[in-house]
Amino acid sequence: MARLLMIPGPTPVQPEVLLASALPVISHTSPEFDEIHSDALRMLGKVFGTKGRVVVLPGSGSLAMEFAARSIVERRGEKALVLKAGHFGGYLARALKAAGAEVEVLEAPIGRGFTAGDVREALEKSRASIIAFQHVETSTSVANPVEELAAEAKKAGAKVLVDGVASIGGMDMRMEDWGVDVCFTGSQKALSTPPGLAIIAYSSKASYLLEREGEGIYFDFKSISREMESTRNYHITPAVNLVVALRESLKRILSEGLEARYRRHKALARALRAGLEAIGIKLVAEEGFRADTVTAAWLPEGVQWPKLYAEMKARGVEIAGGLGELKGRIFRIGHMGEVDANDVIATLASLERSLKSLGYKLELGAAVAAAQEVLAEEGL
Amino acid sequence: MARLLMIPGPTPVQPEVLLASALPVISHTSPEFDEIHSDALRMLGKVFGTKGRVVVLPGSGSLAMEFAARSIVERRGEKALVLKAGHFGGYLARALKAAGAEVEVLEAPIGRGFTAGDVREALEKSRASIIAFQHVETSTSVANPVEELAAEAKKAGAKVLVDGVASIGGMDMRMEDWGVDVCFTGSQKALSTPPGLAIIAYSSKASYLLEREGEGIYFDFKSISREMESTRNYHITPAVNLVVALRESLKRILSEGLEARYRRHKALARALRAGLEAIGIKLVAEEGFRADTVTAAWLPEGVQWPKLYAEMKARGVEIAGGLGELKGRIFRIGHMGEVDANDVIATLASLERSLKSLGYKLELGAAVAAAQEVLAEEGL
Repeated sequence: MARLLMIPGPTPVQPEVLLASALPVISHTSPEFDEIHSDALRMLGKVFGTKGRVVVLPGSGSLAMEFAARSIVERRGEKALVLKAGHFGGYLARALKAAGAEVEVLEAPIGRGFTAGDVREALEKSRASIIAFQHVETSTSVANPVEELAAEAKKAGAKVLVDGVASIGGMDMRMEDWGVDVCFTGSQKALSTPPGLAIIAYSSKASYLLEREGEGIYFDFKSISREMESTRNYHITPAVNLVVALRESLKRILSEGLEARYRRHKALARALRAGLEAIGIKLVAEEGFRADTVTAAWLPEGVQWPKLYAEMKARGVEIAGGLGELKGRIFRIGHMGEVDANDVIATLASLERSLKSLGYKLELGAAVAAAQEVLAEEGL
Repeated sequence: MARLLMIPGPTPVQPEVLLASALPVISHTSPEFDEIHSDALRMLGKVFGTKGRVVVLPGSGSLAMEFAARSIVERRGEKALVLKAGHFGGYLARALKAAGAEVEVLEAPIGRGFTAGDVREALEKSRASIIAFQHVETSTSVANPVEELAAEAKKAGAKVLVDGVASIGGMDMRMEDWGVDVCFTGSQKALSTPPGLAIIAYSSKASYLLEREGEGIYFDFKSISREMESTRNYHITPAVNLVVALRESLKRILSEGLEARYRRHKALARALRAGLEAIGIKLVAEEGFRADTVTAAWLPEGVQWPKLYAEMKARGVEIAGGLGELKGRIFRIGHMGEVDANDVIATLASLERSLKSLGYKLELGAAVAAAQEVLAEEGL
């Protein structure tokens, strides 16, 4: 098995957090667990930049997306505009449709995100009352300028739903300041916790969305919201051990400091990109739309994905391939959460040797040297 | 914190299983994880007694219920009959309604389950094509005779949906033999794994239900089903570490042997009930409807639930209270999964001293002695 997990989630988890998840199971309605749970919610509020409500449920990031979508759609046929920059933009459209919205999709060319101008123009034509997009589109590593897009949406009076699965904990999010109403993520990305928790945050203005009863059990927003106030208000069984782990990871994240953490992500992303470009690899995301958490790159001609995957793995590094229409055309490197400079260097070094062994022409050491320049510049 | 967790889920997890959950996170699309995942599904098939499909998703037992309900309801307005023997019967009705079914609820008096005669009579009047009920209704510790109820439903041509949350892994289930179409559970009950996995099983005859596309992402049965064939068919991110733990627990369960495991559950349940009755405590479930996994009992007059909870906890044992209309009127003891004879004895001993200190009249040692008789009889 690869020792270095450089995929865009699940990401490596610190041993202390893993061990916290392995503590004896405790009762979900005990005062002890209630305190741990509240503590986690409070810290999540800081990470999301919200003073509103935060929900943690057993589930994947897709479940978080569905919960968010079902809560933000307030009536059947409500119009939603999805800004799609890749595979997960399609997920957003499906989740909003399943929630009863009438969905319009604006699609960006591969590698591009959206600008304030795009949103302004689209909202002049559409009468959408919900606008939804990815902060980071994991499939292309495109990052959208959340603050600017949300500002345009607000001018038009639309609610803003942001998929923060591949950004929260690795890139800045200020829901209250930026006017983001609902934002969600999973535990297994830049929050550096094992997969299995769906996390959904509401701005204080949008927290009213959880007052509704909703449908069924999981999407009964009111009961879920009561359980978030105290786990003694049992509604569904929380993933106790994962919440204990999440609390431990959040403590470590806040002790690193959010600003320092985001700076680290930015620096490592820049170093990795410099390394790739130094050996002639082309990035998928255009300048200005590049994520700090994941980097997608075009496979060089003649290099086949399954072979590159195997060569990298044989060198102890696991990287990811393309999704949907990009399968077999790109590769993706995750660099979020606990990833450090040595991991980036090891990845680039392994990539150099892997590509060389597959017949790709490069000067060994060139990618690493370029990354080193950036790291030194960043004082890392 | 209480050392002995005697609530009806989450249940105590063996250290080896906890440690398996704390192994380094691996890629969900790696061949290594795919093998672990397939292995878990194969073993789950044995536990459910099915040769059909099994689905494991990040989620609680309620999510499993919603997934099961949405998959079994094949058209809006399809008629479903819910046999309600307590709080979670209400959940089944809500989940089926949210899935688009027209739901009729047949309610049993507290402490009673359903007989073949009840179902026959109800199906003569109703034209339900789905019949749904709990194997064990956790809130009252009532067990339904699944085989008999399913046989009646089959005669009427109805599909059978069974909530096995509080039974699977602790009581016999033979989906194929008994004609149960869909059955579900959570990881945190008698499967002795930390909470966070929703598990849904289909008989071979009913596995066609997963061929439909469904709605949104989580309830897109077809894509989920493809991911179950191989996790390389990525659709949603599995709760990797919990699946690793589940596989470890299932290995241990099958090595104990299903028959031996069910016999142990039956013996411990009988010992616990004998102990309770020996000190004048009245059981909630009537004779003939008593679960092997959980026991609910009426609080004796003058004994208040919060005080009993605190007294037990001070003695290192955590037990559970009543849900919904039974809150403050009953207490519940879970005895499923890894619970052994010593745990039952410790629970009864602590209960004797706790009740005595709350002014309840009893002869110290009487409950333990009665339980000992049963345990000795059972060769434990």
